Amino acid sequence: MSANTFGKLFAVTTFGESHGPAIGCVIDGCPPGLSISPEDFVADLERRATGRSRFTSQRHEADAVEILSGVFEGRTTGTPIALLIRNTDQRSKDYQAIGEQFRPGHADYTYQQKYGVRDPRGGGRSSARETTMRVAAAVIAKRYLSERYGVRVQAWVDAIGPYRAERFDRDAIEQNPFFWPDAEQVPVLEAFLDGLRKSGDSVGARLTAEASGVPVGWGEPIYGKLDAEIASALMSINAVKSVEIGDGVAVASQRGTEHRDEITREGFQSNHAGGILGGISSGQTIVARMAIKPTSSVLIPGRSIDRQGNEIEIVTRGRHDPCVGLRAAPIMEAMIALVLMDQCLRDRAQCADVRRG
Amino acid sequence: MSANTFGKLFAVTTFGESHGPAIGCVIDGCPPGLSISPEDFVADLERRATGRSRFTSQRHEADAVEILSGVFEGRTTGTPIALLIRNTDQRSKDYQAIGEQFRPGHADYTYQQKYGVRDPRGGGRSSARETTMRVAAAVIAKRYLSERYGVRVQAWVDAIGPYRAERFDRDAIEQNPFFWPDAEQVPVLEAFLDGLRKSGDSVGARLTAEASGVPVGWGEPIYGKLDAEIASALMSINAVKSVEIGDGVAVASQRGTEHRDEITREGFQSNHAGGILGGISSGQTIVARMAIKPTSSVLIPGRSIDRQGNEIEIVTRGRHDPCVGLRAAPIMEAMIALVLMDQCLRDRAQCADVRRG
Amino acid sequence: MSANTFGKLFAVTTFGESHGPAIGCVIDGCPPGLSISPEDFVADLERRATGRSRFTSQRHEADAVEILSGVFEGRTTGTPIALLIRNTDQRSKDYQAIGEQFRPGHADYTYQQKYGVRDPRGGGRSSARETTMRVAAAVIAKRYLSERYGVRVQAWVDAIGPYRAERFDRDAIEQNPFFWPDAEQVPVLEAFLDGLRKSGDSVGARLTAEASGVPVGWGEPIYGKLDAEIASALMSINAVKSVEIGDGVAVASQRGTEHRDEITREGFQSNHAGGILGGISSGQTIVARMAIKPTSSVLIPGRSIDRQGNEIEIVTRGRHDPCVGLRAAPIMEAMIALVLMDQCLRDRAQCADVRRG
Amino acid sequence: MSANTFGKLFAVTTFGESHGPAIGCVIDGCPPGLSISPEDFVADLERRATGRSRFTSQRHEADAVEILSGVFEGRTTGTPIALLIRNTDQRSKDYQAIGEQFRPGHADYTYQQKYGVRDPRGGGRSSARETTMRVAAAVIAKRYLSERYGVRVQAWVDAIGPYRAERFDRDAIEQNPFFWPDAEQVPVLEAFLDGLRKSGDSVGARLTAEASGVPVGWGEPIYGKLDAEIASALMSINAVKSVEIGDGVAVASQRGTEHRDEITREGFQSNHAGGILGGISSGQTIVARMAIKPTSSVLIPGRSIDRQGNEIEIVTRGRHDPCVGLRAAPIMEAMIALVLMDQCLRDRAQCADVRRG
Repeated sequence: MSANTFGKLFAVTTFGESHGPAIGCVIDGCPPGLSISPEDFVADLERRATGRSRFTSQRHEADAVEILSGVFEGRTTGTPIALLIRNTDQRSKDYQAIGEQFRPGHADYTYQQKYGVRDPRGGGRSSARETTMRVAAAVIAKRYLSERYGVRVQAWVDAIGPYRAERFDRDAIEQNPFFWPDAEQVPVLEAFLDGLRKSGDSVGARLTAEASGVPVGWGEPIYGKLDAEIASALMSINAVKSVEIGDGVAVASQRGTEHRDEITREGFQSNHAGGILGGISSGQTIVARMAIKPTSSVLIPGRSIDRQGNEIEIVTRGRHDPCVGLRAAPIMEAMIALVLMDQCLRDRAQCADVRRG
Repeated sequence: MSANTFGKLFAVTTFGESHGPAIGCVIDGCPPGLSISPEDFVADLERRATGRSRFTSQRHEADAVEILSGVFEGRTTGTPIALLIRNTDQRSKDYQAIGEQFRPGHADYTYQQKYGVRDPRGGGRSSARETTMRVAAAVIAKRYLSERYGVRVQAWVDAIGPYRAERFDRDAIEQNPFFWPDAEQVPVLEAFLDGLRKSGDSVGARLTAEASGVPVGWGEPIYGKLDAEIASALMSINAVKSVEIGDGVAVASQRGTEHRDEITREGFQSNHAGGILGGISSGQTIVARMAIKPTSSVLIPGRSIDRQGNEIEIVTRGRHDPCVGLRAAPIMEAMIALVLMDQCLRDRAQCADVRRG
Repeated sequence: MSANTFGKLFAVTTFGESHGPAIGCVIDGCPPGLSISPEDFVADLERRATGRSRFTSQRHEADAVEILSGVFEGRTTGTPIALLIRNTDQRSKDYQAIGEQFRPGHADYTYQQKYGVRDPRGGGRSSARETTMRVAAAVIAKRYLSERYGVRVQAWVDAIGPYRAERFDRDAIEQNPFFWPDAEQVPVLEAFLDGLRKSGDSVGARLTAEASGVPVGWGEPIYGKLDAEIASALMSINAVKSVEIGDGVAVASQRGTEHRDEITREGFQSNHAGGILGGISSGQTIVARMAIKPTSSVLIPGRSIDRQGNEIEIVTRGRHDPCVGLRAAPIMEAMIALVLMDQCLRDRAQCADVRRG
Repeated sequence: MSANTFGKLFAVTTFGESHGPAIGCVIDGCPPGLSISPEDFVADLERRATGRSRFTSQRHEADAVEILSGVFEGRTTGTPIALLIRNTDQRSKDYQAIGEQFRPGHADYTYQQKYGVRDPRGGGRSSARETTMRVAAAVIAKRYLSERYGVRVQAWVDAIGPYRAERFDRDAIEQNPFFWPDAEQVPVLEAFLDGLRKSGDSVGARLTAEASGVPVGWGEPIYGKLDAEIASALMSINAVKSVEIGDGVAVASQRGTEHRDEITREGFQSNHAGGILGGISSGQTIVARMAIKPTSSVLIPGRSIDRQGNEIEIVTRGRHDPCVGLRAAPIMEAMIALVLMDQCLRDRAQCADVRRG
């Protein structure tokens, strides 16, 4: 219910501001008996981490996860799991100025208006820093889904500005800083992003995620549909402006005979639906896409106003990310894993007695 | 919490199957003192209604709304408002056959697998018939938002198969059966859809909705973001496969300098963001888009299996909708209105003390 | 979340006013495959019914339940089950007067203040008429709990005014109009209540309920404890002013050595705890008690004010119930069954993998 | 929704085990602009603290609250407020033994059965240590309620074992270690508890709380009634076995003419209802009571079993609290304050437009 809680049964509550003392989360409803240690968070947090290449901004946080509760002798106990990460890189720069200004394309203006007060340091609560805890919480969800059901979630970037992935090589994805499935295009992208960084501008991106191994039957019609919850989960990620399931926007120009996935004894003959029918997983691979806007934090001056309504010119200083979409793949995976984990528990609550074919 | 309930404070619970005795809803949390009568539902239900032109399927339901509770002497009392519509057009055809078969591209298979049992008559709970109650509930939300805040929500169709709206004339939208904003294209669309209907196939569509007059400050970061809830709301509509906010998928190829909406003393200079920043309304018009797949209920045979796993050939009989997207505009408006209504109440719960500029 | 919804996974939303067109409920989250027909509701609704003896008020409602959705060919389908009861006994008396007055000890004053408007006919939404739907919904919960887990819930009255049940004979409970476990006292109670009815006054009562067969492990610490939810469930019943679990208020004067339920190889040696430890069922019989206030609707005039603040004298006319507690036993059972049903589903969501001894 | 979250709009999620690294909470939905600093928590945490007299157990924790988020420059920002208290007094004693045994009257057995695993150190999650965070969270609620509405919540102990408070002197309550309203009885109680401590046994207690200044109109019928939520809130406190509102259990033997609170131009003439009618605050002082069982952690051996089912003799070692009810007053206040805060926000969400007399 609370706005900073995600999920109904596997409920993740996150807290923390970009430059406050710490960020953290509380995961409630986790099945007991799952093996979890602080080391388990390293890989995905590193995948998401800022500062890992010259193409993402230069914040160097250790992002060491401390497990505060809910785990005893290395196993989850069924009680709330609290995870904490101290913010070690809180530059004590003068934020007085930015607190008085509204950066275009940012949440500064709306937070100020809504709450009458805001923490302007590094974007405060609206910073993408918050997504760290989504990734951390999803480490637990991913593990459970994998161990118990064999579910695997993977995301990659397949469009950056004018570029589209020309080939799909799953093995390439984790081998380059762009989560890009075509190794041959990587040098071109590097040159493109270097140029962009020098120009001070930014660019958008598009990502795709697949969840394989999802059993038939997860998802709750009508308003808790699996695709509706994925839509909400992905749209809640900073900078996301579209969500697609299966063929997505392309369905607007398709014919019914083209779109419907026929079924034979061998199973579905295509997957235009993206693995979801009527809001319920069909047993096929779930396919989702999202588009991420170019960050408005660019080095090229823009017009804005301050709190008094005076017109000002704004230039983002310090860290600059030419394409924030580059680190969104682990976040996208995380949100899909959290949705699946929650729906898994909800399904067995209601339908534990149903024998499925 | 319940899967058939939408909204946290303005909570709408719908029930009913396509060919059961009735459909209905319970609206809990409505502010008291609002004037409501059965006649208020007529216009929007008629806009959504099937059977109003030869381009939508021929179900003739009176769809007369009975108010069962929550309204006394024409005004809402703050207690739950129950609305009921009897299903008068339940053809007692033999549904034994369809109960044994899984139509491709439908929820038949997933409902059967999830629950082990399903009501196959007219698609049962997964039928778009359910959306009638969303529209009915939203009549109340729309009225409150309009009277109290001046909010207005309007949706239209701007793409059908290969066609795109070439002009935008707001006045045209309600003057043709396609909710199409360019009157001159209507004859072409008529011919196209007539041809499609004769061929027995179907086609997808894309819709846009705008909500004007929304005050700054509605929306709850982080997981209750206004755009995240709109995404969930729209994706929960039958056949929707994508949701976009503002520039949507197009942001993937935009530059930061292009996308950011600069601010001057006169306000925002553009609206690429679609009226939402950081999950909170900015005071600009909210813009959302969605794509609707072509219905799989086509007259051209397709391959499928029955409950025993035997391969069969399926042809949809009876009613046939060449483009289900044509009646989605009022449903899209409804879902956006329900999200706004809920966020309105949530905002004033937390921020009633904040004075906004 | 909504205030008229009870339960998180087995979610019951009730609606309707005492003298409106109908009362009803929507049950969401029911496991599929359960056999349910309209006849199944007759027994418990009759047990709760007004008018069954001269000791309860003389409203004669058929209380015929219509199943509007969620059941197909006699079995639940997993979609929302809507139940409807038409109010057939809506006397069209002049309610103008009572709408202007606040009866002492009733919700008239608080509803008027909270909402600025209220339906005064028969108490509107605050009438005990609403509990009919709790009983109806619980028929389904009881059946599931009984068939699937062997759980049985039974409530009885063990104190009325100055009288306490002197013996406990389970078989006697359903054999008299007082749900009283000591048949020999029944004539005395009849005389007492007849006298009370003639005097125009009313009296309170105390009830006990037991739930047997509840498996160990139901209940969610910390804020969803089984006893906390029973407390809320019972206190939400009209006129209830106290809730006790196990030894209840008596624990205040007990010693630890007296209260603690020792355990041997044969199990717990006593049940002071009432079957719940740390908010989780222990496998013992769950024991709860509640006290019901004497209704303020008495025939003896009392002082009050009207909406304009003028002092008035109020006398309840028409139906008069000397002891509203007499029909509370089925309602008490219903609320406990609803709590157990919900906790059952929640437990298996989180702990489906746990093997219990 | 999550079991470790309390409240719908002012949502408090607690985490932590008695002997884990830390306990903490996240408060979501707090109105922005409220002044809060770490010092504000000292007084109530000290009131609740263990070890403050020889009558409560000798755990010496600093209980220093660290504010991790949601507060900027001393004011709440509307984002989640995370509070953290490190457990400094985690004795590293051998808990291997107690992990194998089930203490009678404790949650050991049910946690083990439910989750298949548990943290046995100091009772783990089921320890009253968790209530520290309720008290901390309620400091914020109390401040808001006080500053914005003038609400004041106070609890005291009025029965311990065989003793009842003979006089009520509000000023005495905070002047003795028993929260006892009759200073003259304090020496007798001291002697009684000293004797009890020496004997190794424990005793129960009864507490009363009043909330004054609550405006008319808070509380949500039907299932979110103010009294129902207070019942749940209090019953969720460790060791509580009964909850009463107003006259409580005594209503069972009252007459209607005695119980109904008559109204004159000067207001209600009595307060048998305890300030709540139909689940909504009446504007009178809210009165609640609860009984707390004697702790089962006594020094007198008792029979139990171990995880293998072997019969054992159990003696609690180390800290011993002869009457756990002695520190429950601040916890009782906290839970009532949290309920009121939540209902306050819910009321203004729905009824912001209502003008109250």
